[in-house]
Amino acid sequence: MNIYRSGWTLFCLCWALEAGAQKTSFTVVPLGVRGGLDESNLSAYMVAAAGSNDYICLDAGTLYAGIRKAVDSGVFATSVSNVLKNYIKAYFISHPHLDHVAGLVMNSPEDSAKTIYGLPFCLDVLKEKYFTWESWANFGDEGEKPLLKKYHYAPLSPGEEIAVPNTHLYVQAFPLSHGAPYQSTAFLVRSGETLAQKNDARLLYLGDTGADTIEHSNKLHQLWEAIAPLVKAGKLKAVFIEVSFPNEQPEKLLFGHLTPALLQKEMADLAKTAGGISLSDLPVVITHRKPSGNQERMIQQELEADHTLQVKLIFPQQAGRLDF
Amino acid sequence: MNIYRSGWTLFCLCWALEAGAQKTSFTVVPLGVRGGLDESNLSAYMVAAAGSNDYICLDAGTLYAGIRKAVDSGVFATSVSNVLKNYIKAYFISHPHLDHVAGLVMNSPEDSAKTIYGLPFCLDVLKEKYFTWESWANFGDEGEKPLLKKYHYAPLSPGEEIAVPNTHLYVQAFPLSHGAPYQSTAFLVRSGETLAQKNDARLLYLGDTGADTIEHSNKLHQLWEAIAPLVKAGKLKAVFIEVSFPNEQPEKLLFGHLTPALLQKEMADLAKTAGGISLSDLPVVITHRKPSGNQERMIQQELEADHTLQVKLIFPQQAGRLDF
Repeated sequence: MNIYRSGWTLFCLCWALEAGAQKTSFTVVPLGVRGGLDESNLSAYMVAAAGSNDYICLDAGTLYAGIRKAVDSGVFATSVSNVLKNYIKAYFISHPHLDHVAGLVMNSPEDSAKTIYGLPFCLDVLKEKYFTWESWANFGDEGEKPLLKKYHYAPLSPGEEIAVPNTHLYVQAFPLSHGAPYQSTAFLVRSGETLAQKNDARLLYLGDTGADTIEHSNKLHQLWEAIAPLVKAGKLKAVFIEVSFPNEQPEKLLFGHLTPALLQKEMADLAKTAGGISLSDLPVVITHRKPSGNQERMIQQELEADHTLQVKLIFPQQAGRLDF
Repeated sequence: MNIYRSGWTLFCLCWALEAGAQKTSFTVVPLGVRGGLDESNLSAYMVAAAGSNDYICLDAGTLYAGIRKAVDSGVFATSVSNVLKNYIKAYFISHPHLDHVAGLVMNSPEDSAKTIYGLPFCLDVLKEKYFTWESWANFGDEGEKPLLKKYHYAPLSPGEEIAVPNTHLYVQAFPLSHGAPYQSTAFLVRSGETLAQKNDARLLYLGDTGADTIEHSNKLHQLWEAIAPLVKAGKLKAVFIEVSFPNEQPEKLLFGHLTPALLQKEMADLAKTAGGISLSDLPVVITHRKPSGNQERMIQQELEADHTLQVKLIFPQQAGRLDF
């Protein structure tokens, strides 16, 4: 064996790991990105610490069809069943509207035992409406008997960080207003230590949300206050936030959603809250565009045309891997 | 103008209409055909009198993704929105499991006003579980207030035929047993008069159902008794029936579904009930195969290999038009 060649290979490997560690903290595979109607492509985002296959799934509107596409395109080099059962370690549900939970309910017969996390209002609806014997079967460990106990419900407390077992991730929940009095949730995900890297990076995912001005709420402002120190410290790697409608949508028909103009105002509030910092390097992933007519294109055009919105816009694709 | 050519064209047109009238009575466009898991392809069958674009939709697991595929492949020469809003005149829901109603709920914001028909047990679950303000929004005209009143609930009485407004179709409901004590429904559709033809043909669609022997029920036998005269008279153009699992599925894990062997027994009972008639010319469309592993292929192979099952087997494709 050539000891020099062996040493050189080791050096290269370490350098590659180190470079990789500096480059990304999270791997995200969107299983569905649209804001309704299209049953094959609804909000669901698999998130892992970079270099790990231990994912959590943020919302679960579409699972099977998204995993199928990711397997077919080589994003996952394994079976659909293995991704569903073994890669996804836990679900975090932002709110219980059907376009955020249909995939979870529908795939429950083939899933493995795991935990569903959410604020209590959300878990209550899963127990009372979906995992019941008349509308499906009760795969949960609470609610209508008999209990199949495949899923354990784990209620979250706002602001309290929990470690997600069998992953390298930690999650904190923040309440959102989604067509007051209805609620939704933002999840702040922290990537902890993996074999390949140590870091303290965060990713913020917001479920459906209205703007504070429209909702007569301060939920988004409170969230911006909570994450402002992370933004200033350069620890926030990405924000996933919804823009459901184009600007032409009348205010009274927003139903607890954002437009490009409302997103711009909220991002301006975040920048101001973080001490007037520039967000131009912050990746902002636009979720939940409603596919009616040409709305998806309109929303993208309006966001890209707004020069006061200084963020790094990303329009995710189903099964299109993202690294942050 | 050449009067001979004009007369010849008219003759050809009349002949074509007449031949068409003799050939088919129903057009069916499956919007989804799988028995669970795959959110992009779940039970939903658009049915119209031949020559008409006035459809009813039998179950509504997947709407948008199926219509999109049918438009893209040229089965419908119009927009997705036009098919959803204007081609589908009414929904008939066999039972309220999520894989049979998710498309209806999810597309409700973009749908036009129409009627949802079903047996009372089924409509009650729609009102109490899905069209509520916590799990979605109440687009119905009953249930949790405020009522958006886009959908009118029309309860059916077993065995009583109703005319479906704005179509050339008439429908009769029969109760089924689906994992006793839970129920499901069969719809017997009659094609009435259209501009192109007069006829009295029938199409039978069964929602999920267990076998009488397993369910300790006589619901399927009662259905066979009701349709036996139509079979004998050659008026039954097709039967849509589920086979969810292959024969290897243990009896205690059937959850109110059929296997190839159980279908064979039920078809034998139908043939016997109809006076020992041969069913070898009866098109039997196999619905609701569960896509886990290679089960879909196994079910097809087992059905095709069973020489005691003497029917004309059809395995429908999503967005693949069928004419009966």
